[in-house]
Amino acid sequence: MIVEQRRTLCIVGMGLIGGSIAAALKTRVPQRWRVLGVDRRRGCLRYAQERGFLDQACDSLGEGVADADLVVLAVPVSAIREQLAALAALVRPGQIVSDVGSTKTGILADAALHLPEGVAFVGAHPVAGLEHSGVENAVPGLFDARPCVLTPGGSAGDAAVATVAALWREVGAEVLYLDAHTHDRVFAFLSHLPHMVAYALVDTASTACNPQERTLAGGDFHDFTRVARNSPAVWRDVCLENRDVLLQALDSFAAALQGMRTRIAEGNADELLHHFQRCVQAKDEMWIP
Amino acid sequence: MIVEQRRTLCIVGMGLIGGSIAAALKTRVPQRWRVLGVDRRRGCLRYAQERGFLDQACDSLGEGVADADLVVLAVPVSAIREQLAALAALVRPGQIVSDVGSTKTGILADAALHLPEGVAFVGAHPVAGLEHSGVENAVPGLFDARPCVLTPGGSAGDAAVATVAALWREVGAEVLYLDAHTHDRVFAFLSHLPHMVAYALVDTASTACNPQERTLAGGDFHDFTRVARNSPAVWRDVCLENRDVLLQALDSFAAALQGMRTRIAEGNADELLHHFQRCVQAKDEMWIP
Repeated sequence: MIVEQRRTLCIVGMGLIGGSIAAALKTRVPQRWRVLGVDRRRGCLRYAQERGFLDQACDSLGEGVADADLVVLAVPVSAIREQLAALAALVRPGQIVSDVGSTKTGILADAALHLPEGVAFVGAHPVAGLEHSGVENAVPGLFDARPCVLTPGGSAGDAAVATVAALWREVGAEVLYLDAHTHDRVFAFLSHLPHMVAYALVDTASTACNPQERTLAGGDFHDFTRVARNSPAVWRDVCLENRDVLLQALDSFAAALQGMRTRIAEGNADELLHHFQRCVQAKDEMWIP
Repeated sequence: MIVEQRRTLCIVGMGLIGGSIAAALKTRVPQRWRVLGVDRRRGCLRYAQERGFLDQACDSLGEGVADADLVVLAVPVSAIREQLAALAALVRPGQIVSDVGSTKTGILADAALHLPEGVAFVGAHPVAGLEHSGVENAVPGLFDARPCVLTPGGSAGDAAVATVAALWREVGAEVLYLDAHTHDRVFAFLSHLPHMVAYALVDTASTACNPQERTLAGGDFHDFTRVARNSPAVWRDVCLENRDVLLQALDSFAAALQGMRTRIAEGNADELLHHFQRCVQAKDEMWIP
């Protein structure tokens, strides 16, 4: 009988994502990982500990990192880059560092800059989330059947990548690999651009309609703009991190919208119908039930 | 004891909206209305009749209109305008005609053009719907607590308006009044523009990402673009009917998006944060739980 060694995971940031990783591990594979939590917000750590998500709440980043085989930075993108700088003096060769950020190129560059030789960085982006953030919304099933994209850094050997991939499979995610540039391009179009569009829609509608008129917004409008309630700080970070690709995506979208404007202005019924039919077909092909 | 006279309603078009009006009346106030259905699609009429939504399925528009106190055109916008022309020879003074179209200016103009003197036209737009159309999705509760906007034509006296308002209250809707131009402006921004944006988003993302990359679209993306699966013919009609105001809405939106692009390109973190915070606040103010 082969007994796998129990490994130690330090989660930095006990919010929705960090809390859900911890909850999934303790619920499903409690023998595989000893889970430590680090967060300046003591209430979040206490909440996670009371629910049995954590083996230990740590008082400092240094305390959490000291024993860890794997450190996962589960904080917003700008904080990930700060924590990478802070980790520089704390990590040792053989340790693995990962994250959950929704942009990857800048984070990989910072990891290469700050982390000492022998420390592997494996970027990760779990494509999961809820309308509302915070550890109090954490659930063990958050990542079930959702993609988790890994973007290994140059310093990451096969064993480090396999360890991070195993973690994400254990919490229910389907692991796939992209290089950081491809990741950032794809998510600029599939996630960052739609969020900017939602913000701009709310901006436009609330300017054009008075408060009484706005009450006429139907379910469709709210579907579109639900995510426009997400954390402004998160989206500020994403915009600045992924600026160049996001600007390209905005320009592509503006061109598509301008093309539609031209079709509407020309009033060619057949061409409009054909165009909308192609969009519906593209949508049906994208849909994952 | 006052016994209200039972009146006769003829619903032209037995789809989601027409079927749900019939279902709600027969479920809630069966003594108030005798409900007739007209539709060239015999299967839709049969479906509605088998479920008890109708007192009678009519073989022709003429048969349905002959006995009706109120005729409701529950068909797409371009078909409403065709049916108004067809009604010209069939209606008599004292009868009331209404519709359910999501644009109003052109329909009111056509009603004024086609309907003989003494026939009241009261435009109606129930702000309700589902992702999927068709009588098989009709439910009595479709209009519950949803707005129904009435846009009475110049020919409509108080009694006719009161009759149509009573019908919509009986099926559960909250009735309010707008002039047709205001209606079309408000819905250009709250409904038509978002649909165009959804189509353009699908168009952009499916062009920029290959099929494997597209599988990474998360729930947010699908929230945005769910409605991009709606009937292309319906949206072609809306675009052509409400062209001028929709073009203004598209231009306002393009300007808002361009403003956001400039903020992102400039990379001013504080201003981006402030802008997103204002959008979130506007969204929260618009939200009807």
